[in-house]
Amino acid sequence: MRQPKVTIKIEQYLDERKTLVDKALQKFMPRPSGLASDVINAMNYSLFAGGKRVRPILCMAGAEAVGGSTDSVVPVACAIELIHTYSLIHDDLPVMDNDDLRRGKPTNHKVFGEAVALLAGDGLLTLAFNLMAGYGAEKEVEKKALLRVIDLIASAAGYKGMVGGQVVDITYEGKEPDPSVVEYIHRHKTAALIAASVTAGTILAGGNKDEEKSINRYGQQIGLAFQIADDILNIQGDRKIMGKGTGSDKEKGKITYPSVFGTAESTKIQKELIKNAIESLKGFDNRAEPLRDLARYIINRKL
Amino acid sequence: MRQPKVTIKIEQYLDERKTLVDKALQKFMPRPSGLASDVINAMNYSLFAGGKRVRPILCMAGAEAVGGSTDSVVPVACAIELIHTYSLIHDDLPVMDNDDLRRGKPTNHKVFGEAVALLAGDGLLTLAFNLMAGYGAEKEVEKKALLRVIDLIASAAGYKGMVGGQVVDITYEGKEPDPSVVEYIHRHKTAALIAASVTAGTILAGGNKDEEKSINRYGQQIGLAFQIADDILNIQGDRKIMGKGTGSDKEKGKITYPSVFGTAESTKIQKELIKNAIESLKGFDNRAEPLRDLARYIINRKL
Repeated sequence: MRQPKVTIKIEQYLDERKTLVDKALQKFMPRPSGLASDVINAMNYSLFAGGKRVRPILCMAGAEAVGGSTDSVVPVACAIELIHTYSLIHDDLPVMDNDDLRRGKPTNHKVFGEAVALLAGDGLLTLAFNLMAGYGAEKEVEKKALLRVIDLIASAAGYKGMVGGQVVDITYEGKEPDPSVVEYIHRHKTAALIAASVTAGTILAGGNKDEEKSINRYGQQIGLAFQIADDILNIQGDRKIMGKGTGSDKEKGKITYPSVFGTAESTKIQKELIKNAIESLKGFDNRAEPLRDLARYIINRKL
Repeated sequence: MRQPKVTIKIEQYLDERKTLVDKALQKFMPRPSGLASDVINAMNYSLFAGGKRVRPILCMAGAEAVGGSTDSVVPVACAIELIHTYSLIHDDLPVMDNDDLRRGKPTNHKVFGEAVALLAGDGLLTLAFNLMAGYGAEKEVEKKALLRVIDLIASAAGYKGMVGGQVVDITYEGKEPDPSVVEYIHRHKTAALIAASVTAGTILAGGNKDEEKSINRYGQQIGLAFQIADDILNIQGDRKIMGKGTGSDKEKGKITYPSVFGTAESTKIQKELIKNAIESLKGFDNRAEPLRDLARYIINRKL
């Protein structure tokens, strides 16, 4: 059976962009040296443990959608991947989700111990801001736009975003599934940084306020849809794709979309979000086509 | 017995500045609300647990030394205190130094649990960058200087600074005391952020490259002297001043200046550093007097 053309196109696009991001990350990351080699090794271990680079790719596509160059957003795109990786390392720690495997590999603390893993997360989070500010101090970029982007990304990563989502995620573990709680968790823990990624690209590429707003709305919607897809895959998914056992959310008493709404209803919500995400892009021309394709691609959760 | 005049003067200066910083921090910090209240409470708990605000005060004094206004550096000064507080929370965690008391109060994880404490640290670190970038995006500041400052502070906090120092600190626990190791730990774990604090003030106030370099040298020297004073106090100190039991470094097998060089030699090294720090300021007029007084004050480690 032939695959639909859009899938082939977007898969090639993702592949090319992933290669570009991986190369840039290799360039930006320090090599282990000196007394603190351990923590540098640990930072590199998780950063190069098979991430799909979804957030950097979205950041570049957000620039593309308003006619900007993707090259100039690469440092910020990579910084976002560092922040994403830090959050995975800290989430996997025994005091948090206590996960031994991530993408089929032992988690950071399983390899380097808890103390070094904790510090590797801190190191990646901090290095992300180095990368963004250092690049901006040296290069010809619109500095006010860059400061706005740093602010936006810090908000999405902090207590108003990921940190806030994670604290609710762990404190509500094992409690009664509640629609407003699960939406809060997913919007903060996942959608916030995804929305910030794509919006950062648009801001850096000089998008106007209306474009910024539409792109942000798109990002919020695909971000939530992305996490719902993850929840569903955690029940139905293939161990090989997930890199960890299925059913782990249920085992831990995690509040997820399927646990609150059931799988069928969750799929319906997810499809509605994708439809709305694409609708948010109605004012954009074909330069936003990658964003539209990416949104459709999420339904299959191959992303 | 009358105290020497300089001590009274600097104590009043420190007191006034501390009040100013505390007020600004109160203004900048979020109040607990919504589902993520727990983590906001935890962030505020450690931030307002009796810190002396040494780093923000140094940041303001670094601006003052080159004739800048102290007001305009307050957001960056406060951001540095957030970063310092985050590092204390993470350092105190059971997987790191496992401390139950800090400044005479239960440590963050003792009150909020390990998961929330870890996230409170992450939240403070992230919020620091929010504060710096958000302020810069909105206000009339030299944006290139601000981006350089964000870069400098991120470097001092990350694997090239505090994170690097902390990883060596914990991995060398219980090992043979080694002069180069203890200097590495203290320079990275403590001196880096102290030097960045004072230098940030100078950069933001428009100091030239020579001034920046001298101030940074001053900061590196007082930073190291400050940590040596802390090491000595850990042996000789009064439980009431320290807020924790004395001798805790020795118990944990920490590599400190006294453990490597003995107390007398450590005191000598410390005095030499202070002398050199003041020497670094020889090109500055009386506007750098607070920095000179602060350096002298460290010998007593009341700071």
